[in-house]
Amino acid sequence: MSTPDFALDPRLEHDTRPVAELPLCSVRLMDDLRFRWLILVPRRANVVEIADLAEADRAQLWREVDQCAAALRGTGPCTKLNLGALGNVVSQLHVHVVARMEGDTAWPGPVWGVAGRLAYAPSLLKQRTEALQKALAG
Amino acid sequence: MSTPDFALDPRLEHDTRPVAELPLCSVRLMDDLRFRWLILVPRRANVVEIADLAEADRAQLWREVDQCAAALRGTGPCTKLNLGALGNVVSQLHVHVVARMEGDTAWPGPVWGVAGRLAYAPSLLKQRTEALQKALAG
Repeated sequence: MSTPDFALDPRLEHDTRPVAELPLCSVRLMDDLRFRWLILVPRRANVVEIADLAEADRAQLWREVDQCAAALRGTGPCTKLNLGALGNVVSQLHVHVVARMEGDTAWPGPVWGVAGRLAYAPSLLKQRTEALQKALAG
Repeated sequence: MSTPDFALDPRLEHDTRPVAELPLCSVRLMDDLRFRWLILVPRRANVVEIADLAEADRAQLWREVDQCAAALRGTGPCTKLNLGALGNVVSQLHVHVVARMEGDTAWPGPVWGVAGRLAYAPSLLKQRTEALQKALAG
């Protein structure tokens, strides 16, 4: 279902790790253990705003966002889900779904723009990724 | 289409001004002239997460978000739309749609949590509200 000329933005690729390929989106985990934070990237070329997606893709995007939100809630604690589509720095359309915890580093502010990313150790990355994969497949 | 026991959160009411009543959401303008910033509040009681909405309401929410995004783009300059549903401070479900401009007060960071709100003068508030109402009705 990818458009042939789709390529993941190098900055998104650098900051995140692969989790799953849903029908429309690549789902990736932000490589920052301070937050349980997924990013969905529709595999469509030249899409910046949500309005750039065809209507069927838009409906599918929100279904996949719901699916990722459920996976985050099902695999760990979550005071409040945060959803965002900004794109001020990386213009390729991507949607953030973040399981926020009261008292986390950025609470109650947004996670975007918070400095001091803490990359996962390989074992925790594997554990979180596999739990999310299982939840997304279930 | 409101549930009878819906009431707008007092903090949202305080910070925003009414623009339009769409089939699902009350659309309100953030009373901060630094950003062209709409907030959509589904008129449903006890809804915190998007997953708390019935499926038909969820689809309607995203249609109304698209409509607000188009109204913002149609009534002024916009480098990038920003979309967010956080709810860390005010738990009543509300979705932000913001027309960001390169170089605005918060650029390229998010608008949420930025201090120094600048309330509209009545004439500019009226002008912006009427332009948005016309765009939403069109």
